[in-house]
Amino acid sequence: MSNQYVLAGDVGGTNLRIAAVDSEGSVVHQENVLTPQTRIASDVVEAISRVAESCIANCGISGRPLAFGLAMATLVNSREGKSLSSPNLPELNGLSVADAISERVGLKVFLENDATAAAIGEHWLGSSREVDNSIFVTLGTGVGGGLILDGRVYRGTDGTAGEIGHINVEREGYPCGCGSRGCVEQYASATAISRIALELSQSDPTSSLAGKGEVSSKGVYDAGKAGDTVGIETFRMMGMYLGIALAGLVDVLNPELIVIGGGAAAGWDLFIEPVREEIAQRAFGPPAKTVRLVRALLGDSAGILGAARVAFDSEPRI
Amino acid sequence: MSNQYVLAGDVGGTNLRIAAVDSEGSVVHQENVLTPQTRIASDVVEAISRVAESCIANCGISGRPLAFGLAMATLVNSREGKSLSSPNLPELNGLSVADAISERVGLKVFLENDATAAAIGEHWLGSSREVDNSIFVTLGTGVGGGLILDGRVYRGTDGTAGEIGHINVEREGYPCGCGSRGCVEQYASATAISRIALELSQSDPTSSLAGKGEVSSKGVYDAGKAGDTVGIETFRMMGMYLGIALAGLVDVLNPELIVIGGGAAAGWDLFIEPVREEIAQRAFGPPAKTVRLVRALLGDSAGILGAARVAFDSEPRI
Repeated sequence: MSNQYVLAGDVGGTNLRIAAVDSEGSVVHQENVLTPQTRIASDVVEAISRVAESCIANCGISGRPLAFGLAMATLVNSREGKSLSSPNLPELNGLSVADAISERVGLKVFLENDATAAAIGEHWLGSSREVDNSIFVTLGTGVGGGLILDGRVYRGTDGTAGEIGHINVEREGYPCGCGSRGCVEQYASATAISRIALELSQSDPTSSLAGKGEVSSKGVYDAGKAGDTVGIETFRMMGMYLGIALAGLVDVLNPELIVIGGGAAAGWDLFIEPVREEIAQRAFGPPAKTVRLVRALLGDSAGILGAARVAFDSEPRI
Repeated sequence: MSNQYVLAGDVGGTNLRIAAVDSEGSVVHQENVLTPQTRIASDVVEAISRVAESCIANCGISGRPLAFGLAMATLVNSREGKSLSSPNLPELNGLSVADAISERVGLKVFLENDATAAAIGEHWLGSSREVDNSIFVTLGTGVGGGLILDGRVYRGTDGTAGEIGHINVEREGYPCGCGSRGCVEQYASATAISRIALELSQSDPTSSLAGKGEVSSKGVYDAGKAGDTVGIETFRMMGMYLGIALAGLVDVLNPELIVIGGGAAAGWDLFIEPVREEIAQRAFGPPAKTVRLVRALLGDSAGILGAARVAFDSEPRI
């Protein structure tokens, strides 16, 4: 067993990270590079393959990995190993990424949406261990999600399930990159926090954020923690909208746990009470009482560890 | 095998129906009575037990049934066999209905929410046969739902999952009996159709519905089919709101099929295009392209047949 390992990667629009992971979930070796910005699909495939080979050569374990699990910041058809669409990696749209990389590196490759991979990672080693029904929510540039239902990842018909960021929370609300309007992503992502704070600060000259232009979600949080009304109100709104979306999911999926991760989860103490209030007011009593909201434990590693789990699960254990 | 049968019931606020069902899903014998209106829990338990015994005595099959599946128009904790809450049968709130009836009739009793039971029925014998991922939507007095995921009913942590009627579609919208506001139930149920038509007709004296007070959803449909603008607009609005809720579910659950049943599904040809338009505009392209919307096949029998399936599944097959 000791020589058994998998490759696991997490590919976003900015960073490309690949690791060798053992069956306990320990990252034996990891290499990080920048994702090629040429917008040419073969450059991305080439970069992934090159870093993968480098990981195999440098991880210090003899032998080839069992398989290669790859989390990507795109809408993924995991059954076909295809990237379907993404604002971050549009050059991969429609490409059989798993096949293309498999040909290059000679390994079975399994593609997974990054938020779904993070849900799998948290279920394996993080906040939702031993919990049968959980929803993973990631608050980053966008809002993503992954579902663990009845103890297993739920991928849906094509493998695209879990896209909770596009639940509507404001019927004729802010336009979303997905083509709809008023998606929760437009109110609860890091991007949205910056936009909402900018809007609010334009009509509140007393705010410390007034006149500063667009401030990062971290900056908005720091202002809120220092007592700035715009900072506080931004996170209250963000929590309210996130709560509306999650209240619907509580009624529909009756989860035991909602795990919140991603960069903007750092604003937890400013947004979590409004989230809980909306769930308490809007969801049915029994499932609202059942569900617990917790922070993700694995941080940036959740996607890679989930991708590793997918690679292990795809292989018969010997 | 030929003597093997189960009891299956469907208990609503108005009607109480119990049947003997064989393993092929044939209703061998059925008895319908009115649900007691005394608001005393033991009267309901007594009525169910009495009709159950009568069914056993009169079904023409010798021997006792294998088990008793019971669909109820309440929020159900199916794990504990408890009715949690319901506007229709409030006298049962918190009662271990399954245990109470089991003691009376000497059978294992399995409680299921009626919409979830209908989802199971449609999956066994109706529209969603051999489909692994489907959402059942029932448009009646309220809006209910049931989920078949990865080929099995999904009940969630307590067994309350599937309550899609309380997805928010209008943040500060019409107040809902559940305590929230703007739930899709307030825009897409039969009750909502009557209310919306009344509101619209009050500002449209040319409508054939003007001055008629609250008209049934069937009456609104008939007016719409005859070209009445209020009738048409009511179903357009209803379809739009239903579409907003379903678009979110398409992104979250990536179903192959959405099965629409219940009395107001009869308005299909007036509301289904707005539903499809919202899904096409709001959901991601790939899952929106995958999902098919179809009408339920089993009508009023779906709940009883689903309850029968639950009773069969609970027993080891010999």
